Amino acid sequence: MNKNKPNKTWRSKLHEVIYEADTPAGKTFDVILLVAILASLAFVMLESVSHIDAKYHEFLFVAEWVITILFSIEYIARIITVKQPLRYIFSFYGIIDLLSTIPMYLSFFIAGSHALIALRSLRLLRVFRVLKLARYLGASNMLSMSLKASRAKIFVFLFAVLILSIIFGTLMYLIEGADSGFTSIPVSVYWCIVTLTTVGFGDIAPVTPIGQFIAAIIMIMGYGIIAVPTGIVSAEYSAQNKKDGKAEEQADHKSKPAEIQMNSQSCFNCNATEHKDKAEYCYKCGHRLHPNE
Amino acid sequence: MNKNKPNKTWRSKLHEVIYEADTPAGKTFDVILLVAILASLAFVMLESVSHIDAKYHEFLFVAEWVITILFSIEYIARIITVKQPLRYIFSFYGIIDLLSTIPMYLSFFIAGSHALIALRSLRLLRVFRVLKLARYLGASNMLSMSLKASRAKIFVFLFAVLILSIIFGTLMYLIEGADSGFTSIPVSVYWCIVTLTTVGFGDIAPVTPIGQFIAAIIMIMGYGIIAVPTGIVSAEYSAQNKKDGKAEEQADHKSKPAEIQMNSQSCFNCNATEHKDKAEYCYKCGHRLHPNE
Amino acid sequence: MNKNKPNKTWRSKLHEVIYEADTPAGKTFDVILLVAILASLAFVMLESVSHIDAKYHEFLFVAEWVITILFSIEYIARIITVKQPLRYIFSFYGIIDLLSTIPMYLSFFIAGSHALIALRSLRLLRVFRVLKLARYLGASNMLSMSLKASRAKIFVFLFAVLILSIIFGTLMYLIEGADSGFTSIPVSVYWCIVTLTTVGFGDIAPVTPIGQFIAAIIMIMGYGIIAVPTGIVSAEYSAQNKKDGKAEEQADHKSKPAEIQMNSQSCFNCNATEHKDKAEYCYKCGHRLHPNE
Amino acid sequence: MNKNKPNKTWRSKLHEVIYEADTPAGKTFDVILLVAILASLAFVMLESVSHIDAKYHEFLFVAEWVITILFSIEYIARIITVKQPLRYIFSFYGIIDLLSTIPMYLSFFIAGSHALIALRSLRLLRVFRVLKLARYLGASNMLSMSLKASRAKIFVFLFAVLILSIIFGTLMYLIEGADSGFTSIPVSVYWCIVTLTTVGFGDIAPVTPIGQFIAAIIMIMGYGIIAVPTGIVSAEYSAQNKKDGKAEEQADHKSKPAEIQMNSQSCFNCNATEHKDKAEYCYKCGHRLHPNE
Repeated sequence: MNKNKPNKTWRSKLHEVIYEADTPAGKTFDVILLVAILASLAFVMLESVSHIDAKYHEFLFVAEWVITILFSIEYIARIITVKQPLRYIFSFYGIIDLLSTIPMYLSFFIAGSHALIALRSLRLLRVFRVLKLARYLGASNMLSMSLKASRAKIFVFLFAVLILSIIFGTLMYLIEGADSGFTSIPVSVYWCIVTLTTVGFGDIAPVTPIGQFIAAIIMIMGYGIIAVPTGIVSAEYSAQNKKDGKAEEQADHKSKPAEIQMNSQSCFNCNATEHKDKAEYCYKCGHRLHPNE
Repeated sequence: MNKNKPNKTWRSKLHEVIYEADTPAGKTFDVILLVAILASLAFVMLESVSHIDAKYHEFLFVAEWVITILFSIEYIARIITVKQPLRYIFSFYGIIDLLSTIPMYLSFFIAGSHALIALRSLRLLRVFRVLKLARYLGASNMLSMSLKASRAKIFVFLFAVLILSIIFGTLMYLIEGADSGFTSIPVSVYWCIVTLTTVGFGDIAPVTPIGQFIAAIIMIMGYGIIAVPTGIVSAEYSAQNKKDGKAEEQADHKSKPAEIQMNSQSCFNCNATEHKDKAEYCYKCGHRLHPNE
Repeated sequence: MNKNKPNKTWRSKLHEVIYEADTPAGKTFDVILLVAILASLAFVMLESVSHIDAKYHEFLFVAEWVITILFSIEYIARIITVKQPLRYIFSFYGIIDLLSTIPMYLSFFIAGSHALIALRSLRLLRVFRVLKLARYLGASNMLSMSLKASRAKIFVFLFAVLILSIIFGTLMYLIEGADSGFTSIPVSVYWCIVTLTTVGFGDIAPVTPIGQFIAAIIMIMGYGIIAVPTGIVSAEYSAQNKKDGKAEEQADHKSKPAEIQMNSQSCFNCNATEHKDKAEYCYKCGHRLHPNE
Repeated sequence: MNKNKPNKTWRSKLHEVIYEADTPAGKTFDVILLVAILASLAFVMLESVSHIDAKYHEFLFVAEWVITILFSIEYIARIITVKQPLRYIFSFYGIIDLLSTIPMYLSFFIAGSHALIALRSLRLLRVFRVLKLARYLGASNMLSMSLKASRAKIFVFLFAVLILSIIFGTLMYLIEGADSGFTSIPVSVYWCIVTLTTVGFGDIAPVTPIGQFIAAIIMIMGYGIIAVPTGIVSAEYSAQNKKDGKAEEQADHKSKPAEIQMNSQSCFNCNATEHKDKAEYCYKCGHRLHPNE
């Protein structure tokens, strides 16, 4: 990381390719990265299928090494091109990037493959960055706003579901007992949640008439309870919809405010994103956005 | 297809019978066709039930041939009566008509009955034309409009369901392992979708306490998540409902626009449908609709 | 049925007791009848439980006879007290009354107990008359109105579910085959409905990876589809709610219309119900309602 | 309970600690109590898991005694500090407190552990008092109001579900019979509720084609029926939402009413809660709230 002024040019160029998506090179990089991530996830999945692993173990092993090396190069490039590497390394995505790179290196030291699979699965989280999903989700912002507005009520609702499950779970344990599969109160509570949410695996099912009667009550309750969160979300969402409609109408009457177009630029200094389209300086650290233009 | 003017009369008459439904003959033809299609589907289903096939194999074989011949005659008639046969042959319904006619002819060349069953099942799609379902659905146009309006949000929602399934599926694979039926990550993800959608087959079910605990979380999440698409569709549908209501009110205040009554006529030249009631020329190709009147 | 004027008095009195519920005697009669019907249903249920039937067969047999005799007396009384007995006999409730009375008499001629159980179960329908449920439901009239308003859309929706089930059912039959339990197309379609509605018995479940993949698609589709009828009913109900609210507001501004209080009187001549409170003549046949007052 | 004036001071102080939550001591007391209740519930659950009970029986036994003694002290303290002890003893929470204290004492006299587990599970209800949940739920008051408004309609709906279950349950019993698991009408009705609510355990499943056909109808019906309560709750909730919004708007136009801040004080004399913040006398019995200030 001993970089001096002269090579600023290729660094800022590389920065643009890796962190931004406005140039053709940047887009190509993102697509390649996305493919690598999805392929890597597919390999993790296929490796877990024993008869596929038995047949293609060699291929999957090599593929995993190829992806590990690609990710290593990318990780190093990301560190080099940022002005404040530590900031990146300890950011959320920095840690995810590191963790999704090291599993193969760790396999030299650790034997257990289970922990490594978990690490490799974390690569899924990298997809979010490439897709810049946060922005896409911004389009359906309303959805998350209506969820936030109804958060308190949904919490109360979940608490009620939990208490009902504990009460009825204990009741079913006392009535049915271990012979019908209700071996303990925690298992009974688990069964009660399975029933109340209308999932109904059937690995445990009441056998006695009284147990079946209470199970019927639990089911009808669960059937009715499902109406509550739906009603809440629906009403809140509807309210958000109207607010939006009204705001739009008002805007129409007055004057349409220029929509602020955001681009995929990322600050060379602090990696902050979501800059305005014509921004010349980072809104966060004041650094120039395009130092070489 | 070497048709000259003199027999234009019977051709246009046949065209009216086959493609339109306003005359008694046209209606009778549609009803017979509908019965033939449904009967043919019933035969495909019954043939797949082994003990019925064993008993009535002869009858089902003959019946299939009768239907194949009927469909063949209809297909040829459709080609003859249209002015631009190629246009019909390569239209969506033209291909469906062909595919649902040929399975028995193909059985001379191909041994595998499986592909033929698939072909024969395609006949179901022919029902849509006879029922002119598109028009009937037009009545509940609002429904599809509200679905379209919420498409983007539903896509985000489905994407969220998928990612949750992959994350929790991997987690369950690591916790439960092959002994409880979670033999690989893809199977675990499948189980996770089964649970999240509250279907709950029970062919695979968690056995360890930690696995059951996480399963309970997945279920309650699934129970809550179902509220989201419902809320969206409900709110969008409600909004569409209001727009309609307002539009109607405004129309009431001004002057009721004459409702355009559409009929089942179909152009003799290009087969375009949905002409206005008193239309004399095709709105698409300008050809006369009733050349002999 | 050779009735002459003198005994008109006791007939009209009995009519009041049996068909109306305003007098103490009428109410008592209704309560006794309700208890008899529910008890009779409980006996049918208990008789079907083999170990209870083995123990209490004598008692259940006697109880059934007691109820049969009670119902017989009631049936004859109903015929005697109406002026136009044939009208009652061939009315909906007249036939139900007859069918729920005769099972025990039929048991002398018919051996099969199954058909008799079905007949005895019909007694459940008698509950509706006693509860005068139609009137109670009238209170939640809005509910049925919103259901009616969305009938056409719900039909389209059900049709779509059916077609999806047939298409995916055939597909699963071709993919999974008889080894996984998908023994025929009808069974596959049945499985598809079980999955699409998120019931998920688990007696049949896909085993092949492709089958499980398609099953996952069916489940997520079913999960999304459930949003449609909910959204429709919710929106229509909401609209009805608003109409009611507006109507009420308008009424408040003008003048509260006297609410027409209906009573439980029933015409002595034609058995028409839902007369106004102070009505003296039947609105249907013009007969005096209280001939002896 | 022979208390005279001099020791009024420590009694009222202890009253403040036990019944109120405004002082640090009161808050600490509540937290300790909450931890004790939750720990006690956890012990009940763990004791029911046979392999845990086998290993840690000694520990769980001692822990249960510790909790019993803590609860005993608390119960006596509650009685001593109230002026009208009988009022507390026979209040709802007074009885719950007693019942959740005595199980271990009862174990000397009663052998059956089942009834004792039920008693110990009642401790869950004590959580509500500590959390002062009633007040918290007050925030989502709207939810319960919309549930109340739609109570009558939900009752009609549940009644319909029950009648459908009885009719279809009897039908399935007649069609499937004991060989498929439909051993009696009550069991059939239970199965019908399991299916109608889309739970679908799969312990009982139709085997005959006609049975599967009717099962498919039941499922689709259940799928459609779920739309009804959801629609009702959603619409009612939406209506409540609007009322709230309007009320708020009006308040904004006029003048913001001072929000009445309620605290956790509890009357020393009659234990009434929900006093205004600056209240000096109990609104219920007129007793001074802070006698020693």
